[in-house]
Amino acid sequence: MIPVSLAPEKGAYVGLQGKHAALKAIHVSIHFDRRLWREDIDGSLAHVAMLATCGILAAADAAAIADGLRRVAGEIEAGTFDFREDDEDIHLNIERRLIELVGPVGGKVHTGRSRNDQVATDLRLWAQRKSMEIEAGVRRLGDALLEAAERELSRGVVIPLYTHLQRAQPVLLAHHLLAHSEAIERDAGRLADARRRASECPLGAAAGAGSGWPIDPRQTAAALGFDRPCRNSLDAVAARDFVAEMLAALAILMAHLSRLAEEMILWSSQEFGFVRLSETVTTGSSIMPQKRNPDGAELVRGKAGRVFGDLQTMLVAIKGLPLAYNKDLQEDKQALFDAVDTTSLSLAVMAATIRGAEFDAARMREAIDARDGYADATELADYLAERGVPFREAHGIVRRLCDEAREAKLRLSELGIQRLRAASAVVQDDVLGRLSVDAAIARRSAIMGTASPQVKQAIAEARERWSK
Amino acid sequence: MIPVSLAPEKGAYVGLQGKHAALKAIHVSIHFDRRLWREDIDGSLAHVAMLATCGILAAADAAAIADGLRRVAGEIEAGTFDFREDDEDIHLNIERRLIELVGPVGGKVHTGRSRNDQVATDLRLWAQRKSMEIEAGVRRLGDALLEAAERELSRGVVIPLYTHLQRAQPVLLAHHLLAHSEAIERDAGRLADARRRASECPLGAAAGAGSGWPIDPRQTAAALGFDRPCRNSLDAVAARDFVAEMLAALAILMAHLSRLAEEMILWSSQEFGFVRLSETVTTGSSIMPQKRNPDGAELVRGKAGRVFGDLQTMLVAIKGLPLAYNKDLQEDKQALFDAVDTTSLSLAVMAATIRGAEFDAARMREAIDARDGYADATELADYLAERGVPFREAHGIVRRLCDEAREAKLRLSELGIQRLRAASAVVQDDVLGRLSVDAAIARRSAIMGTASPQVKQAIAEARERWSK
Amino acid sequence: MIPVSLAPEKGAYVGLQGKHAALKAIHVSIHFDRRLWREDIDGSLAHVAMLATCGILAAADAAAIADGLRRVAGEIEAGTFDFREDDEDIHLNIERRLIELVGPVGGKVHTGRSRNDQVATDLRLWAQRKSMEIEAGVRRLGDALLEAAERELSRGVVIPLYTHLQRAQPVLLAHHLLAHSEAIERDAGRLADARRRASECPLGAAAGAGSGWPIDPRQTAAALGFDRPCRNSLDAVAARDFVAEMLAALAILMAHLSRLAEEMILWSSQEFGFVRLSETVTTGSSIMPQKRNPDGAELVRGKAGRVFGDLQTMLVAIKGLPLAYNKDLQEDKQALFDAVDTTSLSLAVMAATIRGAEFDAARMREAIDARDGYADATELADYLAERGVPFREAHGIVRRLCDEAREAKLRLSELGIQRLRAASAVVQDDVLGRLSVDAAIARRSAIMGTASPQVKQAIAEARERWSK
Amino acid sequence: MIPVSLAPEKGAYVGLQGKHAALKAIHVSIHFDRRLWREDIDGSLAHVAMLATCGILAAADAAAIADGLRRVAGEIEAGTFDFREDDEDIHLNIERRLIELVGPVGGKVHTGRSRNDQVATDLRLWAQRKSMEIEAGVRRLGDALLEAAERELSRGVVIPLYTHLQRAQPVLLAHHLLAHSEAIERDAGRLADARRRASECPLGAAAGAGSGWPIDPRQTAAALGFDRPCRNSLDAVAARDFVAEMLAALAILMAHLSRLAEEMILWSSQEFGFVRLSETVTTGSSIMPQKRNPDGAELVRGKAGRVFGDLQTMLVAIKGLPLAYNKDLQEDKQALFDAVDTTSLSLAVMAATIRGAEFDAARMREAIDARDGYADATELADYLAERGVPFREAHGIVRRLCDEAREAKLRLSELGIQRLRAASAVVQDDVLGRLSVDAAIARRSAIMGTASPQVKQAIAEARERWSK
Repeated sequence: MIPVSLAPEKGAYVGLQGKHAALKAIHVSIHFDRRLWREDIDGSLAHVAMLATCGILAAADAAAIADGLRRVAGEIEAGTFDFREDDEDIHLNIERRLIELVGPVGGKVHTGRSRNDQVATDLRLWAQRKSMEIEAGVRRLGDALLEAAERELSRGVVIPLYTHLQRAQPVLLAHHLLAHSEAIERDAGRLADARRRASECPLGAAAGAGSGWPIDPRQTAAALGFDRPCRNSLDAVAARDFVAEMLAALAILMAHLSRLAEEMILWSSQEFGFVRLSETVTTGSSIMPQKRNPDGAELVRGKAGRVFGDLQTMLVAIKGLPLAYNKDLQEDKQALFDAVDTTSLSLAVMAATIRGAEFDAARMREAIDARDGYADATELADYLAERGVPFREAHGIVRRLCDEAREAKLRLSELGIQRLRAASAVVQDDVLGRLSVDAAIARRSAIMGTASPQVKQAIAEARERWSK
Repeated sequence: MIPVSLAPEKGAYVGLQGKHAALKAIHVSIHFDRRLWREDIDGSLAHVAMLATCGILAAADAAAIADGLRRVAGEIEAGTFDFREDDEDIHLNIERRLIELVGPVGGKVHTGRSRNDQVATDLRLWAQRKSMEIEAGVRRLGDALLEAAERELSRGVVIPLYTHLQRAQPVLLAHHLLAHSEAIERDAGRLADARRRASECPLGAAAGAGSGWPIDPRQTAAALGFDRPCRNSLDAVAARDFVAEMLAALAILMAHLSRLAEEMILWSSQEFGFVRLSETVTTGSSIMPQKRNPDGAELVRGKAGRVFGDLQTMLVAIKGLPLAYNKDLQEDKQALFDAVDTTSLSLAVMAATIRGAEFDAARMREAIDARDGYADATELADYLAERGVPFREAHGIVRRLCDEAREAKLRLSELGIQRLRAASAVVQDDVLGRLSVDAAIARRSAIMGTASPQVKQAIAEARERWSK
Repeated sequence: MIPVSLAPEKGAYVGLQGKHAALKAIHVSIHFDRRLWREDIDGSLAHVAMLATCGILAAADAAAIADGLRRVAGEIEAGTFDFREDDEDIHLNIERRLIELVGPVGGKVHTGRSRNDQVATDLRLWAQRKSMEIEAGVRRLGDALLEAAERELSRGVVIPLYTHLQRAQPVLLAHHLLAHSEAIERDAGRLADARRRASECPLGAAAGAGSGWPIDPRQTAAALGFDRPCRNSLDAVAARDFVAEMLAALAILMAHLSRLAEEMILWSSQEFGFVRLSETVTTGSSIMPQKRNPDGAELVRGKAGRVFGDLQTMLVAIKGLPLAYNKDLQEDKQALFDAVDTTSLSLAVMAATIRGAEFDAARMREAIDARDGYADATELADYLAERGVPFREAHGIVRRLCDEAREAKLRLSELGIQRLRAASAVVQDDVLGRLSVDAAIARRSAIMGTASPQVKQAIAEARERWSK
Repeated sequence: MIPVSLAPEKGAYVGLQGKHAALKAIHVSIHFDRRLWREDIDGSLAHVAMLATCGILAAADAAAIADGLRRVAGEIEAGTFDFREDDEDIHLNIERRLIELVGPVGGKVHTGRSRNDQVATDLRLWAQRKSMEIEAGVRRLGDALLEAAERELSRGVVIPLYTHLQRAQPVLLAHHLLAHSEAIERDAGRLADARRRASECPLGAAAGAGSGWPIDPRQTAAALGFDRPCRNSLDAVAARDFVAEMLAALAILMAHLSRLAEEMILWSSQEFGFVRLSETVTTGSSIMPQKRNPDGAELVRGKAGRVFGDLQTMLVAIKGLPLAYNKDLQEDKQALFDAVDTTSLSLAVMAATIRGAEFDAARMREAIDARDGYADATELADYLAERGVPFREAHGIVRRLCDEAREAKLRLSELGIQRLRAASAVVQDDVLGRLSVDAAIARRSAIMGTASPQVKQAIAEARERWSK
């Protein structure tokens, strides 16, 4: 046990006196790393408790320090804490205040650790917590999509499937919405995998060689909710792949949100007219009361690139960096903070957008029924094919009928049963039913298809998976 | 069952006749997607077998097609296959040849599917297979690192730990090498997670709405080794997050390789002199026989940015893209191919580099023992602290001793026991032992530390994990 | 002058015998750097001529080498040159063949230079030439846009201006097209600036310290069309900002092309229907003859990210690289080649797309006249404001009229003069004329506005600038 | 002239009442765009003066507004301005306060313009000004490098040239330093080119179609220091290539700074020992007084990736964006602000680092003279070659001598004249002089070479160019 007098006080820190103004400006991080205050205090509390358990610190000292740390937390929460640039970063700010509050004994909090393992622990802890918050945000957006899908399924709303932004075939709007919920469900999975992989506590690595004191890294890891301590002290202080992996998961999630946002923008244009977005997520005009600019969705789309940029920032920072700790690694924080904030906000904006969206079933149906689409051409070709007409011949027949219908500005079915039968002898009276939108949808009943029972089941299964 | 005459022949494909030369040049993909030939044939074999099981195709037709597909595979393997630009891509090249070989029945291979689900299936299958190959490459590099660690541990080789590229403390070289094996073990985990998540088969999505035929997507998924079919047809053809996630895993892996490469470059400089790289992975000079340029490591370092770029390419391609299929998605292949090739090669280069590296224990020891490093200053401060000297005072004492030693160009221990005792009364005869490199290493015996038994166990545990 | 026997033959090159397969695979570059063959030969011709002028090489030797180099060029052009992987790169392939053709004297070509300055010269030369080709491609697209603008101006075609993809105000289609030509004109300027800045010849830097022979770098620079030699030998071999700058110019150009491509995709959707793209740049369907998928434009849009990735690749490769030459720099070539090819092709595709586009004036006019747009609301508010109604009050009046018109499904002007006058006493009979599309356009007659004379002049001025 | 009552007051702005919290959070920009306050006020002053000149605004109104704008500027400078989130952005904040100060007439400031052209003007103006500041920062770093080069030239300090981080040949340290000043001189040129190209004023474009009032864009452009107005109103509000180009210039500059930073880090390691960095730009240790961690240089190196990320952010934001204004464009500001701040700071840090660097001539000389480098091998081969020994043979002779010297742990020259003469009969007494470092440097006297007179002239020429 360390004698009571042994306080690694502020003296341990050399400070920025006499430094060039530019060095100070580039070096000081308190204006952004103060966001880690709660994790820093939690980390110190776990560390101090472990020091006591291991007999490195007297119980009374540990209690005094823990008490002081809680008082610091209280001050920060109350907004009365004095963050000082002179103290460089959140770690030294808290340590300075701790010593002011509890006296020299406070300096012992740093026994057996270094800023290198301390900062890595803080950031991992913060990332784990934020990752769970973002996953909750993903779930909220997933809920919004599933609810909308359920509602639109019950209304039987149909929308064109687009390939190349050209109308191709009718599908249920619910089915389309589920495609987005599938995508973000994988995003949630990526976040969870990244979290599990990063669930290793760096405390105990000290400056990078491991601590020279008889500490127990397992205890601190467990107390902070990590699965285990890191396995190698150099890796513990040098690794930032946990940041890069989380940023990659966020970047892909933002790419998915940008696709959903693009559809909301497209669909709310006068040309599409498929959706009317809520006034709460759009902005308007003082003279045109009907105007609804999809600012929210546009910003989400625009911000995707920002998170891609954050990911690149982190990858570049670690590229070619020798072990163990280099100051370049300080660039991990702002990139992660920015990506987390951006993604959280974008999720909330898209959830509100989906919840407030009024889909215009009539406009969508109009698009499907348009006389220039010929979504039913595939159906007619399939009909002929099933009845033995060779594909090549079937395609030729349908192509000629399409040409004819286009000239007459009619749908294929509007050409009439006689005309169709004249085109091929296999055509029966059931052909017109087959050319209907409902029939086309109902036939797609295999797994992953757009038939109504299949979509209903897909919603139910998604609900079950999300509820876990 | 479809009547025998029903062949969706080549006629189904409109072709590039009459297209602008620029459109042809940008559209044709056979020069790069031919790499997917095996996956395309495997996918078709599974599809045809399923069509037969479901009664959509007669058993004889299915057999004829399967036989034809195998002949096509044989021709490609033998190098006799005629890849044609007129047939645009690998799918149409194979289908064209299949019909040439087995007649019109070959056209039925495309019944109930579309190029949209076909190409997505091919690329997923290819990615799964390549991901496993790369994971094997990671394991080979891991083996090389573990072997080197074992050898250097048995030799007791010590190296300075660097922070800010300044010597900080002595650690075992084996411990340093294990830090790299830890990092790439997580890379292997990322690849496996991505693989598991992407183990969904798109076959059955057809153009994006699901197939109108009574197919069984579960059978094709199982036959191709996927865990299950995709759950939503739009998502099946529109999703490329499986590519982005794999690229992100490769980008992080390349970042790790670039760090290892950087150390090999640094350490093989005359200034460090810590390692002599094998002639097999370096290039030389015709007149300076001793010259060994670390070209392999430099190229690995330089190529990290290339894979970062591939990742960016994919993310940007899907940003803001509405569902379902858009031609932009064709940009998935070259980015993935390039990243896979680059990473595979880089892994092989680094494994060969590590296997052939001769570490110079004497030069490393010299660096630790250098009279300008004072790695033992921390040890002396800890020694005083344990004996009750307050940290601040202990630091002050050591700082003065360092100044004195620097002037005298001596190590702290070379100041002698008298001088140390004069500096602080708590100093005992055991202090000189404590200031030794071996003692400093031995004290770091907690989990993740550099003490020899700890490192030995870390190697054993790593071996066990890798062997699974 | 060097004695005739002095041939720095193949022996100067150590070769890849005994190298690890992975090192060979990562090191050999002949499969991609063969594209530099013409620049390599041009560089050697200039170098040899200079060596002769400076008296370092006998005139006869120089003539023999020059003759040999021209024979090598002939073989490569004829497709009979044997590119060998054993000779690593294009420089050694050519040198080897030169010596085969002219004997040992061929080895003197390398006197006073090194591969470090040679490869930098080749790539600069290639970049300069390709940059001019791409600028010509930009001009061709600019021509296509100006021609389309002239045609549509003469037809008086009007299109909605979109903000937030919502219809805002009517503008001339010609005016809209000119916006794109403005953007790419700046791209051409960026390429020219980059070219001018990179117009420095590295020959003479040798390995990086400068040549030890009495060479004249000014002569080689002039012979190769550079403005001057580089100013510093380390910089000459280490600098790759000329690549990064050109890639940045290409990336921005691709971003611009992706915007134009996006509009072609949007406008050719059935929902917009503003343009019918030529069959020569779209792909179709075998059964739906009217189908025109905008594959060309989609691929251009998708490929923007690819060039962004190439730029990132180059920036990352040089990040943190010490001087002078490092092998990482070999990564400059493939990134530049890919970006140049991609951009050239994309320019050609977009030029063909614009040339073949048939704009549907009726559909655009319909969009402007739609009863849900109220583009005339701004005009009415301005009308009131000019007549002294305070803005706030004018806006309130118009807002109420818009509400009323929306309910009645009428345009503002269709509310009738009585209704408008009832809303504000300042309204005169001229108000209806003011609310017309033509009036709104005609009023925007200041510089950069959409009024017809202004657009006409803008086209004329653009033609003049482009013709320089 | 607009009647005095015509005030486009706050009423013109709909506000965020009733908006979803997420929309507000993503939409409001006052917390970052307040940095544009001075440009916004300058733009409004120019606009109001033009409105008066054109007779759109009464002189008294214009005077009142201008006076109010100056008072707003005063409040912001004094720190008493109340920035309100409810007012969204800097434009509305200033307009609101202006109206508070001067009454309803203040609303007329917005006559004939829109936020679309206003924000584009503000950002261009800000970018122009910051670009000049950064160019000044580049010059200061250039000065520091030139001064150091002059000093080290006068001291005759020699450093090894490295290729592949292997010692290759001796060069003057001054020559090495000049390589960096060359690189950043091109960066300054890129900034200037970007500035010139962006020197077009968007005012007059209004929402994108041009203003409907009889304004004079030339007057505002001139008043704000732009070369001319933009040429097309859609382009004026939609273009952000001026941001992307400036970001590209900054990214390349940061890549250059990261190379210089890397050398400072390498050279200040104990292994190299070539430089002792000033305490003012390094951080230390409380117990090891000699410790100097190169934090400043490390952070500059790490931050390079950040600016690469900012560039990617902007490119991605504009990718695939249709004309004219979309809210995505709001992402231009934070990326540019961050890159400008980061680069400015990095320039200052590197200038301070160079100014405070003490180069250790003895350690550099030691590296050159090291018995394992054989930098003189090239010289000896050249010596033989000049005297008629064929290159291949010369290389073989030198290779054997190197092997022999290495075994004997001697330099080539230390083998003695007899041994050298025994190796080749052409060797004369002058050979030892030729093998000296000074001779090797002096021979490289052609342009761009490292010979002292050449370096002296290069410094003088650089000074002259920079002084312009």
